[in-house]
Amino acid sequence: MTEYKNNVIEIFDSTLRDGAQSEGINFSLEDKLEVVKTLDAFGVKYIEAGNPGSNPKDLEFFKRVKGLNLKATLVAFGSTRRKNIKAEDDKNIASLLSADTSTVAIFGKSWKLHVTEIINTTPEENLNMIQDTISYLKSKGKKIIYDAEHFFDGYKDDPDYALKTLEVAYESGAEILALCDTNGGCFPHEIYDITKTVIEKFKDVTIGIHCHNDNACAEANSIIAVKAGAKHVQGTFLGYGERCGNANLSAIIPSLQLKLGYSCVAEDKIAMLTHTAKKIAEISNTPLAQFLPYVGSSAFTHKAGMHADGVLKVSHSFEHINPEAVGNERKFVLSEIAGRNVLASKIRRYFPELTKDSPKVIDILNQIKQMEHDGYQFESAEATFLLIVYKALGLYTPQFELISYSTNTQVPSEDMLSATAIVKIKVLDKYELTCAQGDGPVNALDIALRKALEVFYPSLAKMSLIDYKVRVLDSKAATAAKVRVLITSTDGNDVWTTVGVSTNIIEASFKALVDSIEYKLMTDKKIIPNGKS
Amino acid sequence: MTEYKNNVIEIFDSTLRDGAQSEGINFSLEDKLEVVKTLDAFGVKYIEAGNPGSNPKDLEFFKRVKGLNLKATLVAFGSTRRKNIKAEDDKNIASLLSADTSTVAIFGKSWKLHVTEIINTTPEENLNMIQDTISYLKSKGKKIIYDAEHFFDGYKDDPDYALKTLEVAYESGAEILALCDTNGGCFPHEIYDITKTVIEKFKDVTIGIHCHNDNACAEANSIIAVKAGAKHVQGTFLGYGERCGNANLSAIIPSLQLKLGYSCVAEDKIAMLTHTAKKIAEISNTPLAQFLPYVGSSAFTHKAGMHADGVLKVSHSFEHINPEAVGNERKFVLSEIAGRNVLASKIRRYFPELTKDSPKVIDILNQIKQMEHDGYQFESAEATFLLIVYKALGLYTPQFELISYSTNTQVPSEDMLSATAIVKIKVLDKYELTCAQGDGPVNALDIALRKALEVFYPSLAKMSLIDYKVRVLDSKAATAAKVRVLITSTDGNDVWTTVGVSTNIIEASFKALVDSIEYKLMTDKKIIPNGKS
Repeated sequence: MTEYKNNVIEIFDSTLRDGAQSEGINFSLEDKLEVVKTLDAFGVKYIEAGNPGSNPKDLEFFKRVKGLNLKATLVAFGSTRRKNIKAEDDKNIASLLSADTSTVAIFGKSWKLHVTEIINTTPEENLNMIQDTISYLKSKGKKIIYDAEHFFDGYKDDPDYALKTLEVAYESGAEILALCDTNGGCFPHEIYDITKTVIEKFKDVTIGIHCHNDNACAEANSIIAVKAGAKHVQGTFLGYGERCGNANLSAIIPSLQLKLGYSCVAEDKIAMLTHTAKKIAEISNTPLAQFLPYVGSSAFTHKAGMHADGVLKVSHSFEHINPEAVGNERKFVLSEIAGRNVLASKIRRYFPELTKDSPKVIDILNQIKQMEHDGYQFESAEATFLLIVYKALGLYTPQFELISYSTNTQVPSEDMLSATAIVKIKVLDKYELTCAQGDGPVNALDIALRKALEVFYPSLAKMSLIDYKVRVLDSKAATAAKVRVLITSTDGNDVWTTVGVSTNIIEASFKALVDSIEYKLMTDKKIIPNGKS
Repeated sequence: MTEYKNNVIEIFDSTLRDGAQSEGINFSLEDKLEVVKTLDAFGVKYIEAGNPGSNPKDLEFFKRVKGLNLKATLVAFGSTRRKNIKAEDDKNIASLLSADTSTVAIFGKSWKLHVTEIINTTPEENLNMIQDTISYLKSKGKKIIYDAEHFFDGYKDDPDYALKTLEVAYESGAEILALCDTNGGCFPHEIYDITKTVIEKFKDVTIGIHCHNDNACAEANSIIAVKAGAKHVQGTFLGYGERCGNANLSAIIPSLQLKLGYSCVAEDKIAMLTHTAKKIAEISNTPLAQFLPYVGSSAFTHKAGMHADGVLKVSHSFEHINPEAVGNERKFVLSEIAGRNVLASKIRRYFPELTKDSPKVIDILNQIKQMEHDGYQFESAEATFLLIVYKALGLYTPQFELISYSTNTQVPSEDMLSATAIVKIKVLDKYELTCAQGDGPVNALDIALRKALEVFYPSLAKMSLIDYKVRVLDSKAATAAKVRVLITSTDGNDVWTTVGVSTNIIEASFKALVDSIEYKLMTDKKIIPNGKS
């Protein structure tokens, strides 16, 4: 029991405070409440949620968050008092109290450079500022987490002074001393040695670690601090933060809990990691970075044929953990270096009766190889891949026939929309001719084609394109080069990607466009099952 | 002198081999040659460039790369021989030799799990495979880098066997033993201890490190291996690679060289780091990740008011290195005072009399900012940048006037060339109207425009387009999104790149096309000096 207790690591999430310092991140009040709920459901111990004094939005937030009945401890954040005044006269400290949280995080200076050059005071007054602020807040019944800003840089410059600031914080009543690598420039060997020294000196208090990623070591530094004895880890759930970001908790938590024998969250929560990451990215209005350890969509994606074959034999031959343990999934990329096994396993998700030696699978493989040679690429275009499979298996019914299309760009043009398109299609025995203007020729074609098809298939009104990518293949052929176009579409539920290749970008786009519509119509008719692409 | 030598770390870049395993990365032959040139200009020691046996494209690459006169050592990559045959009978080894490089990287198995479960052989035969392969390649005069795949996992499972594989590789003639954390799941304390053990055992051979980022420790692990004595670091320049990617050299190199006293590249190259990173991202057709340490656009961006104030007082108060040391720049989110120094230094290459405070420089800065905001990017399009500078300084004389153009794509078409274009221009008081067919609308426009201009400027006949790239900006706007087109041209002597942006890909291409011709005509007239773009 005691041994278990010793392995418990407190997770302190600062997405709403340090994370909000990230370029491009801006949380509304509703966003903040959603982030709090998501983190609380996942089970972090502390949620740092900003400074109520910084703006009225934050004050309102602290009022509303009270209604949530959190299991996590909400933390308001502020600085030590300003120099040469009393703590009770500092209006930032007053506003910190107005947040009415049980716990506050207070940061103070550990590095003499900052004391003398940035806040222009004396090392003695800085110690007084730490002491007064903590004592005052303690007298108001607060639990105090002391963030020793620039602790490692300060220690490297003047270890005695840096340690003295911690001593003052501890003696004034701080219950947690968090050592901060504020500039994110320290390396694991430095973090280990310095953290170890602090832990040997302060045996009765929880030591925490707070890292930034300026030298790409934030997660490793956090973990090695735990190996040195730290019991409290600060970070932001997806690594958002000033400059290169903070230590990424979505990587640290599974490393500590699944691989190193520590306990950060309840055991049944760790499988919610990927879901939690996706949700926080969604609320933050940023895409979840594809290559993010543990939670990224590529984290367990195998592309090399040899790796894919290995994983199919023994999954841990090329995976450090089982993706399901963190709620993520294994993927195999279709590419020129992937083997027949991968292709077969993809096809078998839809047709379990086929094997890699089935003649039809071999046909499909040959067709895919030829198309890859012509510039197609299916690794992100599974909807087109599925249409090929369904066609090869005779399960594909064309939903319309294209008679012709043309598109024109005219410069100068009479209005802002410089492109026009004409599309003629046939469904059963009915023809439909439409035209449209657009921002460019592909946009005009897109609009014209849907206009024609919506007459027959009203469900297409719900479909929209959400991503459009163009890659010039063999770009040395310059303007005569082939282009590959990827189009991602959605109907609100399902999301799918299609691909087209041609030397004419308009034809390439049109092919991808037609596939995206065919895919939608095939899933509407339940010929292709939904939600698997 | 010896001491300096001891601090030299060999950098081994695998962007073209392990990097190509990244989901979404696909290099054309031309891309590969461009990556090689870029890495060579930056000064890495080894460039690993794939397996000539894997496809015909790679074989062609190894032929063409010979013409480049690289300072770096090009490395072909392959596996130990297949089980139960002779090395000389293995066709993969034969194709490896056909690459005709001085140096080869050979990977072999260190982990018994892989020996028995994945390649289904015995531990003894695996040792034979390592021995035979290296001895055979050695007998062919090759320098051998031995990649001990899954070394750390193998060591944790059976240290004696893992060490035995290294011993065999060493005794067979490998000159570098690279320890691989293939599954990317090890932590710094493990990497340090195991690397140290290996180094103590193998004193006469260079020990290398090869890390993956599945637990977010790839860069820290690489650095701590160097602290343990490794002298050779493998990675990919931007961290591309299987699953979560490989160790990111653009973070490791500056950490080792600027902060830890090692030497990885020539001293004057380190300031090219950000430029090199941008160029490799551009060739790979991926955006350079914003928050990437050292080279990302946010790496030195300060958002918190307190941080910005601190940096303005003493820059290292919130920066672990000076951004200029790696060719990056400081930004402040709320006050856009960035970039003027960089811009001024570019302009002063042509007009040394101008300073960053010259009113004309300020005008140009404002125009560039506006264009960047609209989606332009001048990092690789210096010819367009120069035309802007010459226009702003009143030194630009338009060489022709565009009256109008139009282009049409028709499907089905009567012949293979589905696109037509009509262009009307005016030079002095003469009009010229031409039309052309092309593989696509941009190709047709390109041909028509030149046909019209060659009447007046016969020198254009020598000019050709050698590269054409398209990037969809804000791809979430789908087919109505803006596109940025980059066109690279040559006249046999000079090579220059221009850029155009529009929601209509044809307009964007046309703008870049016109700039590329204007630039050629301006250099012909010696208004712009040759060969600097």
